[in-house]
This record gives sequence, structure tokens and C-alpha cells, in this order.
Amino acid sequence: MSSTWNNNIGFTVFGESHGPAIGVVMDNVPPGESIDLDKIYQFMARRAPKQNKTSTQRKEKDMPQIMSGYFNGKTTGTPLCALIANTDQHSQDYSNLSRLARPGHADYTGALRYRGFNDVRGGGHFSGRLTAPLCFAGAVAGQILEKRGIYVGAHIAEIHGIKDKAFDPINTTKDMIREVREKEFPTIIDVQGNEMIKEIDKARKDKDSVGGIIECIAINVPAGIGSPIFDGLENSIAQLIFGIPAVKGLEFGAGFKVAEMTGSENNDEFYVNDKGHVVTKTNNHGGILGGIASGMPISLRVAFKPTPSIARPQATVDYSAMKNETLEVKGRHDPCVVPRAVPCVEAAVNIALLNHMLEYPNF
Amino acid sequence: MSSTWNNNIGFTVFGESHGPAIGVVMDNVPPGESIDLDKIYQFMARRAPKQNKTSTQRKEKDMPQIMSGYFNGKTTGTPLCALIANTDQHSQDYSNLSRLARPGHADYTGALRYRGFNDVRGGGHFSGRLTAPLCFAGAVAGQILEKRGIYVGAHIAEIHGIKDKAFDPINTTKDMIREVREKEFPTIIDVQGNEMIKEIDKARKDKDSVGGIIECIAINVPAGIGSPIFDGLENSIAQLIFGIPAVKGLEFGAGFKVAEMTGSENNDEFYVNDKGHVVTKTNNHGGILGGIASGMPISLRVAFKPTPSIARPQATVDYSAMKNETLEVKGRHDPCVVPRAVPCVEAAVNIALLNHMLEYPNF
Amino acid sequence: MSSTWNNNIGFTVFGESHGPAIGVVMDNVPPGESIDLDKIYQFMARRAPKQNKTSTQRKEKDMPQIMSGYFNGKTTGTPLCALIANTDQHSQDYSNLSRLARPGHADYTGALRYRGFNDVRGGGHFSGRLTAPLCFAGAVAGQILEKRGIYVGAHIAEIHGIKDKAFDPINTTKDMIREVREKEFPTIIDVQGNEMIKEIDKARKDKDSVGGIIECIAINVPAGIGSPIFDGLENSIAQLIFGIPAVKGLEFGAGFKVAEMTGSENNDEFYVNDKGHVVTKTNNHGGILGGIASGMPISLRVAFKPTPSIARPQATVDYSAMKNETLEVKGRHDPCVVPRAVPCVEAAVNIALLNHMLEYPNF
Amino acid sequence: MSSTWNNNIGFTVFGESHGPAIGVVMDNVPPGESIDLDKIYQFMARRAPKQNKTSTQRKEKDMPQIMSGYFNGKTTGTPLCALIANTDQHSQDYSNLSRLARPGHADYTGALRYRGFNDVRGGGHFSGRLTAPLCFAGAVAGQILEKRGIYVGAHIAEIHGIKDKAFDPINTTKDMIREVREKEFPTIIDVQGNEMIKEIDKARKDKDSVGGIIECIAINVPAGIGSPIFDGLENSIAQLIFGIPAVKGLEFGAGFKVAEMTGSENNDEFYVNDKGHVVTKTNNHGGILGGIASGMPISLRVAFKPTPSIARPQATVDYSAMKNETLEVKGRHDPCVVPRAVPCVEAAVNIALLNHMLEYPNF
Repeated sequence: MSSTWNNNIGFTVFGESHGPAIGVVMDNVPPGESIDLDKIYQFMARRAPKQNKTSTQRKEKDMPQIMSGYFNGKTTGTPLCALIANTDQHSQDYSNLSRLARPGHADYTGALRYRGFNDVRGGGHFSGRLTAPLCFAGAVAGQILEKRGIYVGAHIAEIHGIKDKAFDPINTTKDMIREVREKEFPTIIDVQGNEMIKEIDKARKDKDSVGGIIECIAINVPAGIGSPIFDGLENSIAQLIFGIPAVKGLEFGAGFKVAEMTGSENNDEFYVNDKGHVVTKTNNHGGILGGIASGMPISLRVAFKPTPSIARPQATVDYSAMKNETLEVKGRHDPCVVPRAVPCVEAAVNIALLNHMLEYPNF
Repeated sequence: MSSTWNNNIGFTVFGESHGPAIGVVMDNVPPGESIDLDKIYQFMARRAPKQNKTSTQRKEKDMPQIMSGYFNGKTTGTPLCALIANTDQHSQDYSNLSRLARPGHADYTGALRYRGFNDVRGGGHFSGRLTAPLCFAGAVAGQILEKRGIYVGAHIAEIHGIKDKAFDPINTTKDMIREVREKEFPTIIDVQGNEMIKEIDKARKDKDSVGGIIECIAINVPAGIGSPIFDGLENSIAQLIFGIPAVKGLEFGAGFKVAEMTGSENNDEFYVNDKGHVVTKTNNHGGILGGIASGMPISLRVAFKPTPSIARPQATVDYSAMKNETLEVKGRHDPCVVPRAVPCVEAAVNIALLNHMLEYPNF
Repeated sequence: MSSTWNNNIGFTVFGESHGPAIGVVMDNVPPGESIDLDKIYQFMARRAPKQNKTSTQRKEKDMPQIMSGYFNGKTTGTPLCALIANTDQHSQDYSNLSRLARPGHADYTGALRYRGFNDVRGGGHFSGRLTAPLCFAGAVAGQILEKRGIYVGAHIAEIHGIKDKAFDPINTTKDMIREVREKEFPTIIDVQGNEMIKEIDKARKDKDSVGGIIECIAINVPAGIGSPIFDGLENSIAQLIFGIPAVKGLEFGAGFKVAEMTGSENNDEFYVNDKGHVVTKTNNHGGILGGIASGMPISLRVAFKPTPSIARPQATVDYSAMKNETLEVKGRHDPCVVPRAVPCVEAAVNIALLNHMLEYPNF
Repeated sequence: MSSTWNNNIGFTVFGESHGPAIGVVMDNVPPGESIDLDKIYQFMARRAPKQNKTSTQRKEKDMPQIMSGYFNGKTTGTPLCALIANTDQHSQDYSNLSRLARPGHADYTGALRYRGFNDVRGGGHFSGRLTAPLCFAGAVAGQILEKRGIYVGAHIAEIHGIKDKAFDPINTTKDMIREVREKEFPTIIDVQGNEMIKEIDKARKDKDSVGGIIECIAINVPAGIGSPIFDGLENSIAQLIFGIPAVKGLEFGAGFKVAEMTGSENNDEFYVNDKGHVVTKTNNHGGILGGIASGMPISLRVAFKPTPSIARPQATVDYSAMKNETLEVKGRHDPCVVPRAVPCVEAAVNIALLNHMLEYPNF
């Protein structure tokens, strides 16, 4: 099912960039959860295009209207549908794209998959705009988690080689998470953020784009949620994270660094702390062992490729005529998707965690 | 569903390391596919413990018996069940582990998840032994794919910092894949393989272990298979790959390197080649765009942590008494899981690809 | 997943009777299928409240707006979402129902299931109104099936003991199906239909309601679609049919009559007909053997209980105060749901059949 | 997925009548549940062929061996696999059936579905023998339910027109359920049972067979379990019940009788009883409203067709040669499947109920 995720929670993301609306339906959200719509809008505003140099100049409202599953300020437990109207399309900007495959985009593969019937305007169902309903769903999940003390935060860990400091894998607090979340450009070290902004701006001027990495952490996840083999926390998070366009890699805890480590370096020794809790001295395991939360912060890093839509001329094919062509991608495009992807990563992790929280009796 | 994967193909991996048997049931395998049992055994033998310095000295037969879904040498289309008897358990080796959490293992998280009722002998359902039924399923899927010209191969790309050459992301052939597959220690460059073997042997002598990376490639995957958002090739492969114990990271194509790239560097320009096929000049996208195969080789890399079971004393907890303890893990353990994980990675990719192949009319 | 069906096709029905809108999202609809919106509206108009004596006097538009998955008159293959605005609610009519359980309704069970947080106005998510999005989905599926020669038709087989003639289980044609479909009151024998109308009118005057049976037939379903055990045609049809409110029974072919039959009476003997097709002389099996279509017409009968909302005083409980009360259900209610349920039954069967058709290579 | 059911509990039934073994894997069974194997065997013995006149003379052991998910007498929470060896096949009895379609059987439809590759010996995967693993799964589920006070019982309600008394839809107790369960021929009224036995015996002598109806009841199901629309109790029970071979109809509560009733007759008025519980005066709704348990006994009736394998000559086709033939079914066949199907119906209901019980926090 292409755009549907089915687990304890199910949800389907629907819509095309230039159709009447995009949206999401979530099924099996627990009933009676207060949802603060202002906070939903704030969450989604972090993903929305910004009026600054790091993002597209296209204006969007992107504010969702809830169609069902929400009554008197609370979830009802029946399917929760939210709709986001498409109001600012400039279809003509994309009119020549219907047959020229933009390198790095799904134009060609999408045309094959859907035998030429998909709506290609603005990327259609493959558009990054489809992350708006993902963020809605993730914002809802996040509010439910925060009532249980679970906080999920993300920051820009790297853009085109410029690196931010990492979250503390042991002692990150909800206040640290909130502090980063409220920043216009979410890095832990502002100086590094400013360097990244310059790098993005430089890419824009060069008619180019840059890639980066987002780090995400989740604290206070109760030890014991998740499952081994195919339905563990990594599996669920991975399935959702790779649903965000432009993601090329995902690692948990020490991630790819484990290839240079020994067991004695990498193993996180357990101990019983002052409060009588089992914790680990280090957190190379990223809070997950055997697919199951250890109680330590869950940490992950996600690699995003540079925005494929760049204004430079690129060699490509006209896939209807099957001949070689040159393309200059027009339209308004972020030179870096990473800043707007920060809440998307949080959203995916929120949904995966809520999903596994529902398995447990004392939810 | 912890140990079940449900998509176009469904399968459940069952069993515990020291129970009567482990196995797998696959549902929705296409009927009428010839399965060569000898090749299945060869595939699984690559995962089986070897009699050399790089792996455990425990002897296993691990040869599966097919219980159903196979008749006159062909799949029937009804559920295919294979059973692997557990014949060589030394339960006493693990007898002291029932309450001492081995660092890096799922002993503690498993006890919480299953409220202490899981079979902890030898890691139980969390044991690496459960990758044997995964390999069976993957070997079946691989034979079905190879009849359609699709070949999936993997090699050891890195062990403790020692690196092999990568597969050619454009021109890898089935012969190159087979050549690596037949090696006792599957690296492309034998000299590098020998260095890795020394490194593993050194770790063993140090009562330690080492991690590494496996690279996998799939060639001749037809352009157009897969789907956007949550059911794309990356999503399926990721869900299965993170079902292999010890995996900490996964990247496709250029992977985490995209964080240092610009769009003009990373974008793979399309062209129509001599044969009239749409191909790309480079393959940073790893053969997948928008969750859908582009027709270029699919390439991915998987990071494996060092074997957590090491003979050195480690600080840990007795999680039933909730007190600090020191543990020396006994029993026979590979100082590096990477060599035996090579067919496991292939298996996961085989299953994901067969799954998406089934969506297409001309399968 | 309460309101989601997941199989080869997935769909979620969402909304509450008095919320902003109800609707449906379908995933995995094949791309490139022409959908005639006028025919969709005609299909749905058969379910809509009528301006005659047999149905509610509430006026509804119930005309769906397509939000996604439809472009240039054809399905795109990406999720198809349709929204139906709720424009004619009289919430005050139901204001006293929030704590008094209407006998035969899900007020009490719904309050327990959703811990009192569900939207109870007009039945909320339990309202018969939720069959409108089901009909949308079924109408789409039906158009796709008819292009492949498969026709699904239903008629009122019985209302309060008054019986219509049955469909011919062997020789029903698409013209016969269409003829019944176009009738205002869909019975095969008009005289019987008139008697049923009188019976319904009598029930209305008595402040009472009546139940009935709908018979459904599907012709030209290719032999071989479906599967044994849990994913056969009966299983899928049953799961969807029991999703229609008020259904209390379902039978295929000879149905409950088999309890009075011998094997020699019930067995349908096979023969090769003039055209060289394998057919059966009788059709007690209702076109399905072992969960798989035999190629004979698929026939089923569905029992609907009398509308539970009746104007007579009924004993009931106030489930918030846990005390006994008397209730007179106000508001506008059909004295018989059967006439409007005819397209709902067709819709459920259409969706189940399209679902299984997708499994087959030559779809 | 033909032979897999996926919900809160997942399970796959595998095997062919004349293969090495049949079995079942259940995933997501709660951990720590004591399972009494003797009671499992007793449950399954009720389904096993009996040494009397009402059933086949083929001897089977049918005793399952547990391969996984069971440790120290309790479920572990990891997949529970049970295997039943096939030890008493007489393949030669069926050797002429590979091309002659037995009327009423899935030989022809199965051959089409699996393109001729399915194992046809003894019906293969379509054999009634596959209800043995269903019974294993149901017996496990039943033991878990009984610990929570939920009892599911079934009896033969009708055979070839001879009827047993129905369960009391309001006041059936666990003792009544157990009393019927322990009978060799499970009817409430023994005299009626004896008449039925005579009728079955007569059918055998006539080289014929007879159909019947099984009634099932479940008591003490907590009000509030289940869901509306597609995942309610009726939907789940229906999906599983139609997985039992020979089932042609299913009805809940008043069932098809509702077609002759008025709303004032059919509606079950609520009241608060002595104990302060909300109950209904009558139980035409069969314990389910809106897909959700009302707390009243859940009652259902299942129609089984006469055994299609009869010794009389029947017209049929050779579906490989596509020509008309006459068939005399040899081998050993029950002249009525109903007596052995009684525990199968209980098993299906047990599994559906356990499935929905898992959704609830205080399970």
C-alpha cells in the first residue's frame, strides 16, 4: 500500500501538489486525548516555507482543517482526518516537466510506476508538500506522547560539511529539546547554524543546492516498548523515515561508526543508578536493544540529499519521446530541504513511538 | 506483529535458540517456481558457522526441512514452511545469563517486553540463529528473482576500519556477484579480506570483537517497481534489514556522503543509452527514486556493531535482583558477525524485491 | 483498525454524522482507469434519502468531491480521497440522545468503546451515513469491474416476509442487473415491490420499522480469483458486508438451506459447455469453491434488521447515570433501511471483487 | 494473504493433507499465559476423526508438537508454532483425482488459482484437515479467555432438518457450555442428537451426505470490545468462520429471522439489572451492537453444506483434458462434517475474541 502505514496506528497520506487538497487519515488514535490546535499549527509552521533565504519563496498556508475524529477539543478514537487545501499553485511553472525527467526526482520512475497516469504537476504525490500531512499526524502523536513525558526533538546536525554539536546521548532534557525546537534555524550551536545558513545561501546563488543530516532524540521512552525482528522500534522508525523524500541514510546510536569499533568500546555497560533504574554508562546502542526500548534516550541520524531541483542546466531525457534533452528546472525550490525536514523527522519518530506505546497495558 | 512481515509476501520467523526448532512460514509465494534445494543449502551454508578462525566453533547443521508449500520440486503457492531442528544446544553454557544482562544484548529489554516469560536460553528468539530461517526465505526469493535475471550480491565492505573496494554502481555484472558469493570470505579484493581476517583473529585473541559494513547490490531490477511514501523499496528493505540483529545503520547510494555534496554533484543525469534504455551517468541515487526502481543497480550499505558477547569482564546488572554485577560471557561466539551476515543482507533484499515484483502484471 | 480495510486495496472510511464532512481514502486503486463522475453520482443517489414514503425526509446532497488520486478523468494510482460535506444536520434533534441508549443502536457500546469521547450526534461514526463513502468507493470499483465485463447487481429479496423472486443463479445477464438497478424500488417483480412499499408505509404509520433481505449477484467473475482459508472471496465479502450497519446475516449460494440438503442434492455437477467452458448444472455453491471463483455467478444474501430508531416509547437506560428510562426516538428515520442498503451491498461486493482481481497477472 | 490472518493476533495455517506436516504459527500471543497441553489435546480430539458411525474411518493422531513460543508451561510472547505430522496418508486413494474435479470441492478452482502447481493429494491445502491447526490456535486462545471468565461453546443445532434446542441467549452458563462440550455428539437435547446420528448413518448407507447448522455462544465477553465498520466482532468472526471449509452462511443473534420482524419486536430494550449492570431483556442483537460487545452473550449460527465427497457416481469434468467424465469419489469421508466442525467454530470465535480482548488496557 504505497501511501498507507498499517500497524497499531494506521494512516494514509493523500493528495497531489496541485490537486484540490492534500491530507491524512489516522486510524486507531486513542480516544479522549486533548489536542491543542495552536500547537499543531506551530509544529506545522516549522515545516512551512519560510520567508527567508534558506527556503522557497512560495507562500503557503498549509493549515489543516480537521474533518473527523475530533470533538470538543479531544480525539474521539474514530478516524482523524485533516485536510490541507492547495491554494497557491502555479501549475504553469511546471508545465514543461511532464516529459522531462528532473534528475534526482521521481518523474521518470513515477511515470513508469503509474503508467503515465499520475498527476505530475509540481511533483504530484511525490512532492515534498506531502510531508505537511505527515507533520500533522506527527504533531498529534507528539502531543499525546508529551502528556506521558516523552519528548522528541531534532536539530540540523550537518549541512554541506558544517557540523552542529550532537545531542547529549545520556542527559538531554525536555528543556534542551524545546530550546532547539523554538529556534528559527534549529541547531544546538547558533554559530554553526549561521555558518550553515551562509552555505545554503551560497548554494542558492550558485543555482545549486546542498545536503545535510538531521539528528533526532527521544527521551523518557519507557523501557520495554517495541518488539524483536520485523516490528521493532528501528523497523517502524525506518519505514516512516524513508517515507520522507530525499532521505538516503538512517543510523541509530553510534551508527556507521560501529564499523571502526571493538565490542569492548561499543558495548554499553549497564548499572543501577541512584534512583534504582537500570541505565547504561554510554549510549552507543541509541536506546534500542533487540528492537525494544532500553529506557535510554533513543537517538538517530538521517541523511538528506541536496535538493534535486536546481536552476543549472542538466542533461536528462524526455521519457515520452525517449531522447536526450537539457533541462533547466524553473519554479521556486529550497536550496536545502534539511531545515524544513526537521519537524518531519520528529513527526515520523512521534508516530512510530505512539504506535509502540499503544501495545502496552498501562498506556 | 513482532516477527511477522506482511506485504505482498508475508512471512513469520519463529523459534528460540534452544527450543525444539526454528523456522519460517512464507505466504503468497508465487506457484510453479522451481526451487533447487541444493542451492538453498549452499545459500544457508554461507550463514552457517564455519570451521575457521573468523567464526564460532559451535557446529550446526541448520539444514531446513520443508513442511509445506513445495511439491514435485516447485512451489505450490500455498504457505511454504521450513523447519530447522535445534540439535546442538549447550544450555548449560548460558545458565547464568538468565538474570545478568549481557551488555549490547536484548536480555534486559526482552525481559521487560515479555514480562520475564521469554525463553532466554542462548538469546531465545533474539538469537542470531533466527537469521537462518530468514536466509531460507531469502534463498527461495533469490532463486525466483534470478529466473527473471535479477541478481543480488553482497560483500564485506569494511571490518574495523579495513575497507574493501565497492561494487561498481553502474556496471556490476552477475558474474562479479557470483564470484564474490563463492568466496569463503566474501570481499572483492582478497588482500583486504585477508587483512580483515587478521583483524577478526586479533579481536578473538583480545577477547574482544569488531564491527563492520556490508555492501549489497541488486542488478536488473526492472524500472518502475516500488511505490512512493511508506511502501517504497527503501521502506521495505529497511524494515527487513533492521530485522537482522546488530544492524545500526543503513544507507542507499551515496548515503551519508550526501551531507557533503551539492545538488549538481549528487544529481544523476539521465540519458538514453545505445540500447535505447534510460539510464543515469552516475548512481548516487542507488537505483531508487521516490521509492521506485530506476533500473540502475540498487546499492545499499549496512553497518553491523561488534558482537556484543565478549569474554572480557563487563559491568552489568542482575535485572531480577536489580543490583550491579560483573559478567564474563561464556559460550562460543563469533568475534565478528559480519561474515555470516552477508547472506542475511542478501536475503532481506531478495525478499523485499520479490515482494515488489509481485505488484507488477508481467511478473 | 476500526474503519480501515487492508488488503490489495486499502480504504478508510472516516467522519461523523454531524461533523464537518465524511469521506473515504482508497489506496492502491489501479492507475489509468476512467471514472465517470456522473455514474458515481447516480450510484450514490440510489443510497441517498428519497423523497417518498419509504425513506427519511432529511434532505442530503451527499455528492462527493474528489480531493486526490484523480486527474484528467482517470485514476492516478495514488490515494483517491473523496469528501462529502455534512450540510443538513439538525443536531438539536439528537441532543437528548447523548446519555439515553437507543435500543438496537451502538450508543451504549460506542460510549464504552471510546470511553465517552466519541461524537454521539446523529450516531456519529456509527451513523448509516457512513455508508455514503462506502458507496463512493464501491461505485469506483464497479466502474473498473464493468470495463472487464464483471457486473454486480442487487435487489430487495424480502421485506417483512414479502418476497421477491430470486436472481437466476445460472443465467442472469448484465441487462437484467441493469434493469433492476434503474428501478426506483429495486425488486425483480414490481408487484412484490409495491407490496413491500405498502408494508414499509404501514410500519411508518405504526411508528415502527421492518427488516428484510438483499440478494446480490456478480456475473463474469473470472474463475480462479480468490484464495483458500482466510483470504477467500467469502472472507473478504463478509468482512465488508458486516461493515454495513444493521446486517445480521450473510449466506452464499444455497446458504442456510444446505442444512436441509443431502450432498447429492447440493453438489453442483460440472460439465464442459458448448463454448468449451467448465460450468456447473446448478449453482448451490454460489460461484465460490474453496474461497475461489468457479466462474459461475457469485450469489449472496444479506439480512438487515428493522431500523432500530422507532418513534414508539421504549424502555432503556441512561448510561451515564446508570438508571432506567423511557425513550421516544425523535428525528427523521427510514422505517426500513433495506431500499437504501441495496447499493451498499453492491459496493461492498464490488470492492471485494476488485481487490481479488488485482492479484491476477492479466488484470 | 491466503492462509494468514493479521490483526492484533496474527496466524498462518500451513500444510497440505499429504505433505510432511501441517501446522500453525501464531504471532502476538500475550506472554506468561499458562497453557495446559492436555486440554489442548482434548479440544483437538473433539475435531479428530472418531471411531463411530458418524465420521471417517481414517485414523489420525493429529496431536500437535509445539516448536516455539512455549517455555516452562507458559506462552513466551514470541511466535507460537505447532506442528502436526501427517502419518496416515493413503495417497493412492486419491491418485485419480488430480484431473477429475470433485463436485463441491475446490479441485478445479484450486487448479486455476495455483495454475496446476498445488498439491492435490487429499485436497492438499484445501483439505478439512487444515482445521486441525485452526483448532490448536483456537484451543490456546480459549484457555487464555477462560482465565478471564469468557467461555465459548458450540453445539449441533441442526442436521438435515432435525433440530436441537438453541442455547438460552440470555442465561447460558459456563456449566451448560461445558456439559455440551463433553458430549460425544454435542447437542443440548440427547434425543435430538440420536436422531441426527441416525440421519447421518442413513446418509452413509445411501452413499450420500447431509448438511447442518452449528450454533455458538460466548459468555462474559466484556462490553466495549470490538470496533465499528470493518474491524468489529462480526467482521473478525466472519473472516475466520468463512475460513472453515463447507461454511455457506453465518448469522448473529436473530439472524435471517430479522427479515420477518418489526423494529418493536427486534429491538432489545436495555435495563439496569440487580447488580447494576446494563443488560437487555431479549438478545436479538446477539451480543454485538455496532461491531462492539454489549456484554450480553454473543450468539451466532453457521451453516455447513453436506460433505461434497460422496460415493455415488457424479457427472464432472476432467479439467486437464477439458472433457466430461463420471466420477465415483473413493477414499474415506465423513457423511457429515458438522460434528467435527463444532470445535472449529469455537476455535474461530475464540481467536476473534482474544484478538479484540488484546485491544483493551485491562486485559
